[in-house]
Amino acid sequence: MTESHTPIPAALAQIIISMTPRIRHSPFFNATVRDGVSHFSVYNKMLMPTSYGDLAAELHRLMHGVAMWDVGVERQVEVSGPDADRLVQYLSARDLSKMKAGQGKYVAMCDHQGRLLNDPILLKLSDRYWFSLADSDMLLWVRAIAAEGGYNVDVCEPDVSPLAIQGPKAEDVVAKMFGESIRSIRYFGCIETTLAGIPIVLCRSGWSKQGGFELFLRDGAKADALWEMVKAAGQEYGIGPGAPNHTERVESALLSWGGDTTPESNPFEANMAKFVDVDTPVNYIGKAALQKVVATGPKRLFVGLVLDGNAPSDWPLGERVLVTAGGRDVGTMSAVVYSPRLGRTIGLAQIERQTVEANARLQVHTPKGVQGAVLAPIPFA
Amino acid sequence: MTESHTPIPAALAQIIISMTPRIRHSPFFNATVRDGVSHFSVYNKMLMPTSYGDLAAELHRLMHGVAMWDVGVERQVEVSGPDADRLVQYLSARDLSKMKAGQGKYVAMCDHQGRLLNDPILLKLSDRYWFSLADSDMLLWVRAIAAEGGYNVDVCEPDVSPLAIQGPKAEDVVAKMFGESIRSIRYFGCIETTLAGIPIVLCRSGWSKQGGFELFLRDGAKADALWEMVKAAGQEYGIGPGAPNHTERVESALLSWGGDTTPESNPFEANMAKFVDVDTPVNYIGKAALQKVVATGPKRLFVGLVLDGNAPSDWPLGERVLVTAGGRDVGTMSAVVYSPRLGRTIGLAQIERQTVEANARLQVHTPKGVQGAVLAPIPFA
Repeated sequence: MTESHTPIPAALAQIIISMTPRIRHSPFFNATVRDGVSHFSVYNKMLMPTSYGDLAAELHRLMHGVAMWDVGVERQVEVSGPDADRLVQYLSARDLSKMKAGQGKYVAMCDHQGRLLNDPILLKLSDRYWFSLADSDMLLWVRAIAAEGGYNVDVCEPDVSPLAIQGPKAEDVVAKMFGESIRSIRYFGCIETTLAGIPIVLCRSGWSKQGGFELFLRDGAKADALWEMVKAAGQEYGIGPGAPNHTERVESALLSWGGDTTPESNPFEANMAKFVDVDTPVNYIGKAALQKVVATGPKRLFVGLVLDGNAPSDWPLGERVLVTAGGRDVGTMSAVVYSPRLGRTIGLAQIERQTVEANARLQVHTPKGVQGAVLAPIPFA
Repeated sequence: MTESHTPIPAALAQIIISMTPRIRHSPFFNATVRDGVSHFSVYNKMLMPTSYGDLAAELHRLMHGVAMWDVGVERQVEVSGPDADRLVQYLSARDLSKMKAGQGKYVAMCDHQGRLLNDPILLKLSDRYWFSLADSDMLLWVRAIAAEGGYNVDVCEPDVSPLAIQGPKAEDVVAKMFGESIRSIRYFGCIETTLAGIPIVLCRSGWSKQGGFELFLRDGAKADALWEMVKAAGQEYGIGPGAPNHTERVESALLSWGGDTTPESNPFEANMAKFVDVDTPVNYIGKAALQKVVATGPKRLFVGLVLDGNAPSDWPLGERVLVTAGGRDVGTMSAVVYSPRLGRTIGLAQIERQTVEANARLQVHTPKGVQGAVLAPIPFA
């Protein structure tokens, strides 16, 4: 697939998706429908709620209150058994030798050429690991590596579906449900617990920078019950439904694998340098390729853009759009939004390194015409 | 994910999908929008047209005339290089030792436990293979197997996007474009050719039983031009846009991988027995597991159902629904439609073998209530 920039036709204001069992439902699906879900995406072959019809209110809750999200699409690849430590290390471009049960880590899973296949949160539980996935079928990858390498492990997709509670008041809601001790859980720390008999892994995580937790529900049949319990507990804090928020994620520069990255991207082109260990004795898939990237420098960098003051931001971005500098192709922009907090139209882009280092002025070829832009540090301040 | 049957809520008559570069566009996207596409699905992380707003007309064209479909979502995994023959055989649960360039074969790709990972058409070209995929990221699987096994191959997803021409008049349209000699191409036979300089692999294939060809476009930048050429050539035959047709595919019992199958299904549970070779000297992934299935018999079978005469068929099926016999769970139904040709409401299901062998009367637990059903041979006569 080329990365040409196709203007989104005005004739197609809304894309309606056909129902099919090939695209699965989250166990929270019925609950989200009751609460008025209006838009979805498809993620890991599952319907993912993206809005309940009032994006401004959803953003406000996330930034100033608390929101609850069905993120059941974050599927887990579970690895257990005698060789689990060894296999999980081999699959992760990060030194895990000091990782303890109850910890989570953001890891790059790469192929043998150093291409980024997924950027999961890896959770280490008492007796198993979960790769909590972005949008690619990593079960195929992990099973192939495990079987061909003769690892003595069990690899599966368990019945585990995260419900995220996000926002500055999220901790209060979670403390009310699980007790005050949860306030001491560190970032990406997790505990295996229950709530009214419902098995849950509680983790301080979530795809926003506003703080919060994810409740990894270990029994899909209890999804409705859990949803209603969170809703009831959050009522006094003004909780409401939401979804991974486009505005906040662009402001916070959270990576959308497969959207911000291309199939050729390595983790250094995805702003993951500090999570990749190349000077380590441990061996993992893609290590030699990644060492080469470090030696020569990545070709592109994941950067922020601030578009010129009059840039419209109301076009939907269905494909990456071309970015040029002085008439030359230098990269693509993959997300754009008007940030109410910053009062500017901002974007995320992959731009060739030399252009970034020269801090060149850029032109973004949007469906609404060419817009000037400058580079900005991420996350946007 | 459990296979519970969630009634589709009336509140959610249409599922609207958010735009994101994470879900790619086919190179034919603009052309389909010009021609009035109204509904999509998501397949291999790409938008796939599913209707242009008049399903009856689309079915009629397919059954009695000719239709053109954007099936760019059928992505190819390309394997080339010195060890390509050996790797492709290892990945395919079928004896390919006599396969010649210019042939295509329907193959089961299985994992080491014999689970069906994908059911592609494998095309053998002069210097490479293409696995023309159903809806799973097989690039991950093939690259993992190739790299860990030390195969000297190149594995990629090339810029190749099929455009299907289907229906009883499809051959006439294709002969008009490519010459009369194409009439001698056998089923799944393919030729490497060009049309006005556009590189194409022409194959007698397509996801219907009404006959036709797929034009595997080898240059996405020429998609618009090719679409218009097909449209012009087909005009005298009444060609119009369409998509893989739900009614026809249920009547013909064409497998929808991931919809009709579960992650645990083996090819014998997907009606692929005649395409799987277990008594062969060649080695491939999952062979021992599949031999065991043959020895014991598959647990479930992929079958046709005819629902009782008064069964409504106007409910969208967003999830597989439960099937019981005498109060006992015996399987799930994954597709249902009213067949105008048969004058009956028909379905596709996975049902436990003993129940099928006993030809038991069944109850289908639809969102509109329990409906009686009987088994029927597939494809539906």
